Formats: sequence, structure tokens, C-alpha cells
Amino acid sequence: MSVTAAQGFSAAGIAAGIKESGNPDLALVVNNGPRRAAAGVFTSNRVKAAPVRWSEQVLKGGEVTAVVLNSGGANACTGPEGFQDTHATAEKAAEVLTGHSAGEIAVASTGLIGLRLPMDKLLPGIEKAAANLSEHGGEKAAIAIKTTDTVHKTAVVGGEGWTVGGMAKGAGMLAPGLATMLVVLTTDADVDAAGLDTALRDATRTTFDRVDSDGCMSTNDTVLLLASGASGITPEQGEFAEAVRAVCDDLARQLIGDAEGASKDIRIEVINAATEDDAVEVGRSIARNNLLKCAVHGEDPNWGRVLSAIGTTKAAFEPDELNVAINGVWVCRNGGVGEDRDLVDMRYREVKITADLAAGTESAVIWANDLTADYVHENSAYSS
Amino acid sequence: MSVTAAQGFSAAGIAAGIKESGNPDLALVVNNGPRRAAAGVFTSNRVKAAPVRWSEQVLKGGEVTAVVLNSGGANACTGPEGFQDTHATAEKAAEVLTGHSAGEIAVASTGLIGLRLPMDKLLPGIEKAAANLSEHGGEKAAIAIKTTDTVHKTAVVGGEGWTVGGMAKGAGMLAPGLATMLVVLTTDADVDAAGLDTALRDATRTTFDRVDSDGCMSTNDTVLLLASGASGITPEQGEFAEAVRAVCDDLARQLIGDAEGASKDIRIEVINAATEDDAVEVGRSIARNNLLKCAVHGEDPNWGRVLSAIGTTKAAFEPDELNVAINGVWVCRNGGVGEDRDLVDMRYREVKITADLAAGTESAVIWANDLTADYVHENSAYSS
Repeated sequence: MSVTAAQGFSAAGIAAGIKESGNPDLALVVNNGPRRAAAGVFTSNRVKAAPVRWSEQVLKGGEVTAVVLNSGGANACTGPEGFQDTHATAEKAAEVLTGHSAGEIAVASTGLIGLRLPMDKLLPGIEKAAANLSEHGGEKAAIAIKTTDTVHKTAVVGGEGWTVGGMAKGAGMLAPGLATMLVVLTTDADVDAAGLDTALRDATRTTFDRVDSDGCMSTNDTVLLLASGASGITPEQGEFAEAVRAVCDDLARQLIGDAEGASKDIRIEVINAATEDDAVEVGRSIARNNLLKCAVHGEDPNWGRVLSAIGTTKAAFEPDELNVAINGVWVCRNGGVGEDRDLVDMRYREVKITADLAAGTESAVIWANDLTADYVHENSAYSS
Repeated sequence: MSVTAAQGFSAAGIAAGIKESGNPDLALVVNNGPRRAAAGVFTSNRVKAAPVRWSEQVLKGGEVTAVVLNSGGANACTGPEGFQDTHATAEKAAEVLTGHSAGEIAVASTGLIGLRLPMDKLLPGIEKAAANLSEHGGEKAAIAIKTTDTVHKTAVVGGEGWTVGGMAKGAGMLAPGLATMLVVLTTDADVDAAGLDTALRDATRTTFDRVDSDGCMSTNDTVLLLASGASGITPEQGEFAEAVRAVCDDLARQLIGDAEGASKDIRIEVINAATEDDAVEVGRSIARNNLLKCAVHGEDPNWGRVLSAIGTTKAAFEPDELNVAINGVWVCRNGGVGEDRDLVDMRYREVKITADLAAGTESAVIWANDLTADYVHENSAYSS
């Protein structure tokens, strides 16, 4: 499963001692070929962690031999020294994998911002990880990239003779422009870098980019797709892209389901929008409304807060034509009171909010979480 | 004090029975002239409550004789019937004040969205309020507009022979484009509607519009400035505008100090920005970052979250030139680690965050609150 579900990949996850807890904190994913094509999508935050800046450069070559991922430290806002640490990480991986250059090694980090990584632990950890590489190492790699995740996240979709698999981590700072997450996807399909890039961008646009747990955009978000070509099969591009999208969708849903402190997963569907952009803008505005997020936590079908969130957008709509359903009950009709709010059952973890803009035929789905006292506790004590 | 500090005004605050608690819920402010000039600023939310749409029309005439304000119900998203309720409220006030038309009566409401107001209580309440009008009624009026406010808010600034005073309510849903607030300012200065309008827009732009407690924009925000001319003095416009700004600033600071569930008031000053718009955009992004708001609650000087908030904006800056101080300690220098974060003392209610963009000479101050478990509790149980 995970990144070793596809042929041609080995992986490892070990405890290098970066985390004081002694939990696994270093993962290594290696593409054993024959092809080493790759594509990547990174955070759109302008304050980018050192490994993001490094990996963006690596990906320009369209080839990635291995990915080193660490939890326990984001290596963000660490200055030139932090960038040198990432470079040294890639050099070390190239050295232990022999026959490769640092320019083929992607690096991803996650954890606290503003702290240097303990290189005296990380570099020996790479040797240890290399010694533990296995075609069955995918699960261990997925475990090693966890931060506040309560479970590790993996997904696999199979084609005819080829496979797309992947792992993800991410629990807080989930917002579009990607979401404090590290994701590595692998495939044994024989697809070139351009084909991977197209499939990955299409997939992230409607999956990870539509996950908005807490409105906060990370400095470290990285999604990589590596192809080994080991199956010898080149699928039709549409079929391949759909498999990549399905894996991303599965992982994105797992991220929302394990978001820090959340007690509800909120599926916000905006329908009858004039444009898809309008639908996404309205969905995000609803997703980020703290008052609504509190109401959902309290199982209160407070559609007024949905309307006031819609009202802050530039989307095409008339206030007195808006309709809102919560878990299928149209509690707001034509901008005013609709069906009886007491009919709404919000006891379950998934809550569906449908916003009908009555302005067109486009739609979009955004996933969010409720706002809870646990979120506050977890994030006010994180660094202490 | 309050709206009766200036000559020529009377006010009342009574319990009409709109609130089930029996607390005061209806205020009436009357301009006894000789002038009845007025200006208003309203929410920029496109979903506007009925009283906002009504009062916007009234203000177009530049004259306001009286303002009826109720707590206990927002009269937002209540359809044509809700608008008729507002109209009936103005008609009733015009009737009891005799000699005036409904078109001179502004109306403001605050409370839950999506509920009709109990007109059988509100209309008799207007009669009762009119019977209680007094030149010393300002405090009672300020008390009657409270919702979740723990204290009533008033401010007064005196000029030479003239005065500007006011009252405000607002505790949650505080965000720019105004902030779930109702504000009535009065002056006995002899200023025409155009002069009032200029002074009020200038004042709100840098005060109420820079208060961002929880990122949520209300459907009901209303700020009114009424001039009676009773002092017979026409101050120089700059001097008058400064007095209006000072009252607005004082009230805005009181709103932040009493925001729902907050334990900290966060003063975010963005300096050395290329433009004032850049400074405001960056300040708002910091103000709305839930992770940072949690960190401040936990008294954790987590400057990484400040940087990741800055990084989501389009403002001019270079990531490796950013500096951030928390309570005067420059914990981030040149985009990386600066002074020792242990030097930061965050025990007091006011926390100062300074973000230096190193890109110009403009600056702006945005006020925000921390995110607390109390905020979640208060807003998840509000309607139940």
C-alpha cells in the first residue's frame, strides 16, 4: 500500500531522533526505475520553507530519484543556513543511494517553523533509512511523516496492470494553496514528466486545493508524483489522470477527517453559481467563517451565518434568491426562513451545507471542519 | 455622556419585551434641533438586514430626526415582511414624535439573524421609550442596545463650546466593512450633512474598519452621526473630523476590549509598507489567522505563524527581509530567528505585534482578538 503499492519503489520510515518523543520522524522514498519522471505542486505561500524552495528547483528537471521527508521540524524561516541544511540532506541521500546527484533528490519537511533541524541526527538517519529500504516500506514511511496526525494516511487506486498509490500527512494549517501537508504519490505507469504534471495539477485543483480546515496556509505544502514506469504500461492520459485524482480525493478526505481538534467534517457544496470561480469563492468564504464553524460544532443549523458569509463575496447572486440547505433541509429559501430548522439532524460527524446561488449552472465542493475548544487547546499549546 | 452629551438630544432605553430575559432592548435617540443633519456608514455585506436597507434610504435625505434601535433580533434575512416591520417601526416613531415623517427615522437592529421581530412588543415599546425621553437618557440607551456585550460603551470628546459623544454595541462578528455593531454619534456642532459625511467616512476608515475581532462581517452594522447645531458653533472641519475620529477610536477600542470570549486584545502594526493598502492587507491577514490567534491565547510568541500569514498576501515584501516584533522583542529578523523568544512577556491583555515589511514608509494598525475556547462555547450555543 501507500507509496510502495506501485512497482519500482522502495521506502522506509525510521526514528532519527529529530522528535524528542522518539517517534518515527524520517521517511525515504526511492524510485528504482526504469523511469524516474516526476511532477510537483507546492504551497503558494510566499514565505516558503527551505525544502520547498529546494524541491521546486529539483522538479524543474522533471526527474526525481528519491524523496527525503522529515517530521519534527519545518525548516521554514531558517535563513541561508536552513537552505544549506536541506542541500546537505539531499547530498547525503545522493551519497547513500550511490550513482545519483543531489539534484535528483526532493526534500520535504514538516513541524514547527523557525527552528533549525538537528542535522547531527538527520544525516545519520538518512543512512539508517537507506539501510531499511523495502518494497513493503510504504506504511512505515507514512507513519514517519505524521505530526499531530492521529492516524497515517494512505490510498491506492489500480488501473489495468498499473497502480497509483500515495501517502499524506496534514492535520492543522489546512487551507488552499495546499494544506500543511506533505503528499507523495507513486505510480508504475509509464508516464513522462509532462503527463504527470498535467494529471497532478488537475487533481490537486479540485481536491487538496479545496480542503480548508482552518484557513491557514502553510509554508511547507508539497505534493509529489513519481513514476517508475515499472509496469511497462502507458495508460490513456484521461484514465491515468482520473486515478491520480481519485487518490488525491481519498487522501484529502482523510486529511479533513483527522484535522486538529475537529469534531465535524463539513461538506460545502455551492450550486447554481454563474462560474466555477464564484462557487469556489463562496465555498471558501463559508468554510472560513468562524461563527458558522462554531455553530456547526454546536449542532446549530444557523443558516444566517451562511448567508452573512456569502454576502461578503463578489460572486453573482441576489440576496433574496439565495437558498441554503443543511443536511438536506432547506432551512433558507429566497434569502429568508425556509423549512423548519428543527428538522435538521446534525448529530453525525459529516455535515452537508448546500448553498444555492440561483445564478447559473456551475458548482464546487469545499471541505472544512468545525471550530472547537480542542482546536484552540491544541494550537495554543503546540510549541510549549 | 453617550448620545446625550451634546446639546439638543434626548434619549431613552427601556425593556420592550423583545428579549426573553426582560433586559432593556429598545433605545430611542432624538435630535431636537435646530439642525437635523446626519450621515451614516453601513455594512458592506451584500446580505443586508432590513433596517440597514431602510436607513440607507433615510440617510440619502441627509436629515434624521430620530433613531430607533433594538437588540434581541437582527431583522436580517426576514424577507419583505421584515422590511415592512422596519417600515412600521419608523412610522410608529414618527407618529409618537409628532410632526415628523417616517422618512426621517433611522432604524437599527441587532441580535439573531432569520427571526421576525415581535412587533406586538416593539411598537408599544416605542411609545414607552418616547415617554421616557430625557436629556440624561444616553446611558440607558447605551445599555438597551447590548447583546452579548458585558459592558455598555460610550465616549465623549469636547471641542470649544461643542461636543461629540456616542454609544456603541458590538461583541461578536467584528470585522471590517464594519463590525457587528451599532453606533450612534451625536454632536451639537453646527455642521451640515456633507461635513458630517466626510468626517464620519474618514473616521470609520481608520477605526471601526480596522477592528477585526473574528473575521466575520455582519449584516447589520450601522454607524450614524447626527448634528443638532444646538451649540451654534461651526468648528473648523479638520478639528471637527478629529473629534469624530477620536470618539470612534475610543469606541472601537472598547469593542475589541469586550469581544466575545476574548482574553487578549492584539494590536497589529504593520510598518514600512509600500502602500497603506499593503499595510492594511497584511494586518488583516495576521488578524484573521486562527493559528496565530490560538498562539496568542496560549501566550506563545509564535512568529512563524505571523510570517506564514504575511506570506499569503500580495503586499510588496521580500520574505528574507521581514522583521517581526512581539511586545517589542524582535523575535524575527530578516525572515529568520531574531531575538530570544523567551524575552517576550505576553501575560497582559494587550499584545503588540509589529510586522516590518521593509518595503516602504506606509503603516496601518489593525486590532484583533485571540481565539479562545470561550469564543467557541459562546458561539456554538448562541441560538440555543
